[in-house]
Order: sequence, then structure tokens, then C-alpha cells
Amino acid sequence: MAEADRKLSNGAERIDFQTDPSRYRHWKLATDGEVGTLTMDVDENAPLFEGYQLKLNSYDLGVDIELADALERLRFEHPEVKVVLMRSGKPRVFCAGANIRMLAGATHPHKVNFCKFTNETRNSIEDASENSSQRTICVVTGSCAGGGYELALAADHIILTDDGSSTVSLPELPLLAVLPGTGGLTRVTDKRKVRRDHADVFCTTEEGVKGKRAVDWRLVDEIVSNTKLDQVVAERAKEFAAKSDRPGDAKGIALKPLKRERTKDGAKYSAVSVEYSRGERIATITLRGPDAAPPKSADEMAAQGAEFWPLRLARELDDAILDLRINELDTAVIVFKSEGDPEQVIAYDQFLEANAKHWLAREVMLKWKRVLKRVDLTSRSIVTLVEPGSCFAGTLAELVFAADRSYMLIGQMDGDNKPPAAIVLGEANTSGRLPMSNGLSRLATRFLDDQAQLDRVKAATGETLDAEAAEELGLVTFALDDIDWEDEIRVFLEERASFSADGLTGLEANLRFGGPETMETKIFARLTAWQNWIFQRPNAVGEEGALRRYGTGQKAVFDTKRV
Amino acid sequence: MAEADRKLSNGAERIDFQTDPSRYRHWKLATDGEVGTLTMDVDENAPLFEGYQLKLNSYDLGVDIELADALERLRFEHPEVKVVLMRSGKPRVFCAGANIRMLAGATHPHKVNFCKFTNETRNSIEDASENSSQRTICVVTGSCAGGGYELALAADHIILTDDGSSTVSLPELPLLAVLPGTGGLTRVTDKRKVRRDHADVFCTTEEGVKGKRAVDWRLVDEIVSNTKLDQVVAERAKEFAAKSDRPGDAKGIALKPLKRERTKDGAKYSAVSVEYSRGERIATITLRGPDAAPPKSADEMAAQGAEFWPLRLARELDDAILDLRINELDTAVIVFKSEGDPEQVIAYDQFLEANAKHWLAREVMLKWKRVLKRVDLTSRSIVTLVEPGSCFAGTLAELVFAADRSYMLIGQMDGDNKPPAAIVLGEANTSGRLPMSNGLSRLATRFLDDQAQLDRVKAATGETLDAEAAEELGLVTFALDDIDWEDEIRVFLEERASFSADGLTGLEANLRFGGPETMETKIFARLTAWQNWIFQRPNAVGEEGALRRYGTGQKAVFDTKRV
Repeated sequence: MAEADRKLSNGAERIDFQTDPSRYRHWKLATDGEVGTLTMDVDENAPLFEGYQLKLNSYDLGVDIELADALERLRFEHPEVKVVLMRSGKPRVFCAGANIRMLAGATHPHKVNFCKFTNETRNSIEDASENSSQRTICVVTGSCAGGGYELALAADHIILTDDGSSTVSLPELPLLAVLPGTGGLTRVTDKRKVRRDHADVFCTTEEGVKGKRAVDWRLVDEIVSNTKLDQVVAERAKEFAAKSDRPGDAKGIALKPLKRERTKDGAKYSAVSVEYSRGERIATITLRGPDAAPPKSADEMAAQGAEFWPLRLARELDDAILDLRINELDTAVIVFKSEGDPEQVIAYDQFLEANAKHWLAREVMLKWKRVLKRVDLTSRSIVTLVEPGSCFAGTLAELVFAADRSYMLIGQMDGDNKPPAAIVLGEANTSGRLPMSNGLSRLATRFLDDQAQLDRVKAATGETLDAEAAEELGLVTFALDDIDWEDEIRVFLEERASFSADGLTGLEANLRFGGPETMETKIFARLTAWQNWIFQRPNAVGEEGALRRYGTGQKAVFDTKRV
Repeated sequence: MAEADRKLSNGAERIDFQTDPSRYRHWKLATDGEVGTLTMDVDENAPLFEGYQLKLNSYDLGVDIELADALERLRFEHPEVKVVLMRSGKPRVFCAGANIRMLAGATHPHKVNFCKFTNETRNSIEDASENSSQRTICVVTGSCAGGGYELALAADHIILTDDGSSTVSLPELPLLAVLPGTGGLTRVTDKRKVRRDHADVFCTTEEGVKGKRAVDWRLVDEIVSNTKLDQVVAERAKEFAAKSDRPGDAKGIALKPLKRERTKDGAKYSAVSVEYSRGERIATITLRGPDAAPPKSADEMAAQGAEFWPLRLARELDDAILDLRINELDTAVIVFKSEGDPEQVIAYDQFLEANAKHWLAREVMLKWKRVLKRVDLTSRSIVTLVEPGSCFAGTLAELVFAADRSYMLIGQMDGDNKPPAAIVLGEANTSGRLPMSNGLSRLATRFLDDQAQLDRVKAATGETLDAEAAEELGLVTFALDDIDWEDEIRVFLEERASFSADGLTGLEANLRFGGPETMETKIFARLTAWQNWIFQRPNAVGEEGALRRYGTGQKAVFDTKRV
């Protein structure tokens, strides 16, 4: 079954990233005042694809889609939750990690997409801690292996039961000849600062580490006997909650289902539309600006809830990107367009900034940060077309700077009276509140060593910049008049589709992230790139490789050359 | 011929990294006072392997071995050379980059090793500039493509002739479906700070960029007409030389041929011996401490020249590592051992530190830095055994900290009267003068978040640390008594050889480099890992891939899935 596309077990044609707690099969989300609890209790008979069972709390993408959904709900629906306990609903096992039969049978693109999404989900746990004051405590009871321990590593605090049998482990290398690729290796060295030789022993010890050594080696924060576990967990929850600035008395908003209508060649959401030109391998994503002025007050914003334009747009764009990544593998280029009034977009940004201390405004801005990072990490060429009638202003202008290149029309199209293309910069672009994974704003990444130019750009905040001004400031790649526009862009799109898909993925992964590195960029480049390489090597995925032979009773046969 | 081992065109069985100017076929090294000139004039009929010609100043590993040798000689044999001009000896072409037929026919391990060595060579050009005050000016006449431009990127200053036809280009992606993988992408974004959308256009434009745009986009530093070229080059050489602290009146030392005797199962040098246990896939490298006390003066050191123990040992170790990397692919583990008097090693370190301002002492210390980095970047598991009679002190103790893990014997072996194993720390370990690629010392990397422990370790400088003390300070992984010693190590070595070779490469590439990232770590991880992935993908290396079809008249056929 390897490398063959498998059937989704729900009979659908596409993997859907939308879900809600009423449909969860694998996680339980409960809240009790300031404490939320996420219980992993995987239904082994509800795998995403046909052909395997999810035994021992092992997971596949379907399990992680529920987790990602639950994490979003904890942020938006539960502003009162200050600390989240992550627990297992099964006896004697916390989590066995990514399901091996799923991995063994997955196509290369599915493996890569699976790892990317699970990495983004674990990063969002850390984002909640750092930026939204919602901390996570992982309570490990039973064995916590591979991806299970990688999940624990995303938490602020790991408690391991000291029962003589509960362990943490990263057995991927000895067992499967692959890496702990969902952030595991990077978090071991860079987050938990496990000494490198201890990490070497840990990652090559199939049975894992337990008890005092797990604490001594910094693999967990504390060990607690079974009899004291409930008491210590309650104490830690209280301690972490006391340090949170989340409002205990606020009322959350419901993350209602997205309005989404699929067509044969795309999808229509309320503020986003996606069109696939599959023959040309192009996906055009058009974002629509707000229909009305921003709310008058934070209360009004909260009353609008999931309908509040910036939140609605962010959720729709996020879904469109996730859908495209995994369901439209042949897409070579994403073309971003927009329609609307740039001043209105800026007005919404200003509303959010004026209410930055309100929990919901903060969550909406952080959501945009995560969605834009998702764009940066999407392995498709990205081009943004700034045309008459578009609204690439403030937050939306980030899509100009996230693009591999951008084109802007000078003046108007012959016979068209839409207002000339304009870019308007705002605080969203210059304040650093929408950083890339490298920790810098997209503008700072763009002008990495040119502070003078960056200052000139900042000085233009609020101005309506036409194509020539935007090109002169270095905000767009090319400003073209309407005579050249269509041909230039057609040639670019054709050329892009003619290049090697893998070559472009590697090229863009390097060119998009100049400058400093962070744990996140290390996870998405260093760790992921090595894992992708290993996911192509016969020692893991060949007929005699470890991933394919696992559980067959046959030992893997390795090519012994060290490369 | 792809993926088959090819025959060396000199009829030898092993690739040899030792050469000297009398044997160069591809480079000319000339000096004139403070200016050195490296002229690339590749002999197309002298490829490393049979089966291809090196047309248009294209290169293979053989060409780069000469370059690496010439760069070392410029440092040691020519202290008076303050600036190096890198030029082409051919009309209308500077360098066409790595030879495509060589790449198309190379095994995966050879491609990876070739890229690693060329990257290290380019890094050494930057090391000469940053640390040895020997700057490089690249004078680009004619087309400078791919690896040719990557060579130029390593220089401090790039002059491009403005003749309407000379260009710089990175055509790897459009032409071959691979990356500019010898540091190219990283230096474009992080060193030259080319704007990311300009970089995108540049790296997808086969014909390259010339003239004013090359300067505007920061791809070169200046363009100069043919008629003014000699004058401007002379001026720039003078300017750069004026900023150098290299001694104009010092006399260099001759880098005489290494004393090396190959045996069936290893090699013996004057201070290094290598033993291959090929059945067990183990290479044991034993380093011998000095036979005599350090010289009395810097003059005496200069008189010893290449015989000066630290330099002799560094050159021998470097050769042993390079030989092992490319000629002994089946080796799973390198076991480092040493023999000698720790106090003598410390005495040599202290001599170097006392004479740190002397150009030769500086070069020797910098050579050790480069050799130790080469060890860090060697894709073999590394274990250091600290046994009775060993001399892991100061500089040599770095091999304990460079290892993936280390074992130290408590007390003496039954029936053996060698002095008990000891580690002695010195300035070499604590001052940061031997940094890893991540910019930190090996000890700082080891105790990444534990300043208190690092301080305790530093406080023990100069003490003779026995096994228990070393283990307590966290300097070794395990201290064992002689009852457990043999069994524990045997089990470890067997286990290591049983794991997937690729899995270990990926694991070690992640665990060895915690903490900050630098341009170097980005090159060796982010860029290299993506390139290695691409070097496994059918779009590049498959029967219908771009690398295989180049020059056949047939177009490559690509799998269009974006992963």
C-alpha cells in the first residue's frame, strides 16, 4: 500500500480540517473554571484512512486535526482558561506517537504534510503559552513514546508518574530508522537543553527513560508518585494559573462552522474565494475586505464573535491554505489577490491595535500571526498581484511581503474604472506584531541589512502608495503598466510551473527565511529537511527498510554507507 | 554510469586530499609582495574520475582539493600576503560551476561529500578574512555560473567586468532541478542580503544578471569596464591590504608533505594512527601527544615549521578525517583515543596562547579550529574513550566534547600500570577560541542553559580530573570501572553499527548543534539538508530527471506534486 493514495475512511474525497467537539472521536475537551483539560483517548477504529487501527493512543492526521481545533477553541471560546492539562484517557499509556502503519503506508507528500501540520499544532501550544498566557501542563501516565513525547515537549511543564513503569522515549531511530521529526530533536536540545550526549543516549534507547534519570537529564520537570499525582497536578495548575493575565470573567465567542461552498474548481467562503486552474497548476486566492466599518467598541466586537471580519477572514484563509496543501498537490503557484477598500482594512487594524489589551483583539491578532506563518511555510510558489480595486493594506499587505515575488499595476486597466492599485502600510507591518518564524517582521526580513531603507519604508506608513512609489520603496518586485501586465505574469506563471517541484520547495525554504534562526525555523528547516531526506531513503522506506518492515517480524536490512 | 562507483582517472584506489603546487593541474598560485593571485585555469583533461571533461573552468572534487591546498599555503607559506585575487585564466568564462556530467554520474555519497568539502573550502576563505586578516577579491571576467558564483560569494569583494556579456548566475534550479548548494542560497540571503524577491528572480533566471542590476541587487560590489579593470583591481587590492594586520616581513613555513604510511587496515602518520575494523565498521583514530616540551620562543616554533607538534597533528588528523569520510563509507563509528602526557599538551596550548599575536601561532590555532569543525561535521557516530595513559587535555579535550558520547575509565586496568585516565581543561576549552560552527565553544554548547555548571567547569581549569570528577562535572557521558568497561563499549559499538546509517546522520546533525545558528550552520543544515533531499528525488536524479537529462537534448520530465 505504500506510496499509493489511500482511501479516506469516511468516504470523502478531500481531507477536511474543519471539525468541532461534537464530532471528536479522539480528544475530550473539558473546562472547569480556569483549568481546561484535553484528554487524549483515541478511538482505534476511527483512523483517517482505511487500512490501519489507531492502537495505544497512536495518532494520524485526523487525530491532530481534532487537537488543533480544540486548541483554537481553548483560545477563543474559553478566555477564562488559564492552564490546560494534557492527559491520557487510557490506562498504562500516555501516547504511542504517530501511528506506524499509517506512516509506513503513506505517500511521501502525505508524510511531509502530516509532519508540517503536527509541527504547526505543537507550535501553537507554545504560542498560547508565550503570547496568550494560556499555559500547558502535560501529565504523563504510562508510556509516552515518540510523537507522544514530542507533544509533551510542547508543554510548559511535564509531570511524569513515578510508578516504575511510566517512561518517556524517542524510539524512532532504533525502531523505525527515522527521526523524532515533530520538533522532538530540536526541543530536546534547544528548549529543554538536554545535554547533547544525554540526548544521544536517550534517542537511541528504545525503551526510554523513567524516574529520577528523566528529571536529572531534564527530560521531564518532575516525577510524582501515583498517590500524590492528583494533588500535585492541582497545585501546579493553580501556580501556573496565578501567573496568567487571561480574564477569569470574560465570556468566550463561539467558533461557528465556516461558511464554505465547494465547487468543482475551487471554494467560496464569505470573504475568501479559491479558484483552481488545474491545467495551469495555479490556485488563485482572493481575499475580500470588510463590508462595513469596524465595531464601535470591544463589546460590539465580542458580540460579532466569529463574524468579526478579521477573524472570519483569518479562519477562512487558514482553511483554504490547509486544504490546498494536502488536497491539491499539483498546484505550483498560489496567486494572491484582494478586493476592497484599503482604508477600511487599516481601520480594522487600528481598531485591533486600540483594543490590544482586550483578550479577543489579542487573540485575533495572534491568529493572523499564525495564519501568515502558515502561508510562509506553504510549499508552493507564492505571487501577489496588486491590482486596481485591491486592498493590500496593513495586515493584508503582509501577503505582498510573504510572496516570493509580487507585481503591481501602474495606473488603471484600459477600460476599467477601478481605483488604481495601492499599498497602505500600517502598524501591523512595522510594529513587529506579525513576525515570521525567524522572529522578524516580513519587512525587517526583506530589508535585512538596510536599516535606512526600512526607516524610509516606515516613514511612509499611512500613505496611499501607488505602484511606482511602492516599487521605489522596495515593497513590490515589479511595477508594470497595463501593456506588459498580462504577458509578464503569464510568462512567469508558465515558467514557474515548468520548474522542478522539489527544487522550488528547497529554493523557497532557503530564500524565504534570511536572518536569524529560532527554534521554529530550526524545526521547519534543519529537522524537517533531514527528516524529508530520510523519508526518501531506502533504509527507512524501501521494501526492506525499517518503516516498512516494522511489525512484520522481519528485521530491516540497511545500506550501511554513511552519507 | 549514475550511482555506480567510477574509476579515478589517476588509477588510484582512494581519493587523496594531499597535493602541492608542483602537482596542480587546475590552479596557479602566485604571489607578489602583499598580493597573492589564485588563477583558476582548469585542465579539462584532468578530471578526478574517468568519463567526463572539465570544460569551461567547471570543477570536480579534484579541482577543489587543489584550491583547498592553495588556501592553506597562502595562510602558512605566505604570511606576507594580505589580499588574494581570485581570477580566471580562461577568456570569456570565469567558472561554469560544478561539472554537470560529474554530478550526473556521481553516487549519492559522493555528491554529498563533494558539497560538504567545497562548503568547508569556501568557509575557509571567509575564515582567512575574518580571523587571519587575509582578504579575497574576486575578479569576475566572463560568465560566472552556479558554483562559480558560489566561489565569488565567499570573497570579501566581487568585481564584475561591465562588458555587456559578463554575468553572474545561479542557474541550478532552472537547468538542473537542484539547489545552489555550496552555500549559494545562504550567502545570497544572509551575507550579501539580497532582497528575497530579487533572489527569487535571480535564482530562477538561467542567463543570470549583469551590469548595473547586478550592483543594484547587491549581487556584486562593483562593475568596472574592461579598460579600467587592472587599475581598479590594483586599487582595491591596495585598499584591502592596508587594512590587514599580517606581517609584511615575516617568512612563511613550508607545508611539507605529510609522513603517511598506508596499511591494509589503516594508516600511520607521525602523530596519528588510524585502524579500520571493517567487519565491525569501526575506525579507531589515536592521537599522540608531544614527544618534547614546547619551543622556547616563537622563532624556534617557526624554525620547526610543519614539524611543530600542534600543526603536524592538526594536518594529520585533518587528512585522516577527510580520507575516512570519502574512502571508508561503511565506517559507522569513529573511536577517538589518545596517548601521551596531558601536561605536555597543556604546555603547548599555553605556548600558543602566550604567542597568540605571532602570525604562526595564530594560524596554528585557527587550523585547529577548522579541523575540529571538520570533526563536528563528519557524518559518523563519534565516541571518545578516555583511558589510562591518554592525554585529552586542552585542545585535545575538545575531542571529548565533539563526540556524540564519551566513556572514561575509573582507575587503572587490571595488570596495567599506565597512569589513570585524566582530563585537564585549559584556555583552549574555556576561552571560546575553538568555536563550533554555531559560534559557541563545545563546552558552552554542552551546557547551553546551565551557566552555573559552566562556571563550575571553568573553575576546574588546570586540575587533573579523574573519571569520577569528570563525570560529576558533566564532561563525560559515563565513567565506568574496568569490570564494565569492555562490555559496555562493545555493546555500544555493536548497537551503533546496527542502526540505520541515514537515521544516525540526521539525528547527529540535529543533536550536535544546539543553540544559536550562524551562516555556517545554516549552510550545513538548512541548505545542505534540502539539497540532500533533492539529490534523492527523481525530478533531479531519476532516469527522466533534469540532472540526468542535461545535455542529452531530451527535456526532463517532472513529477509535478509539490511536497
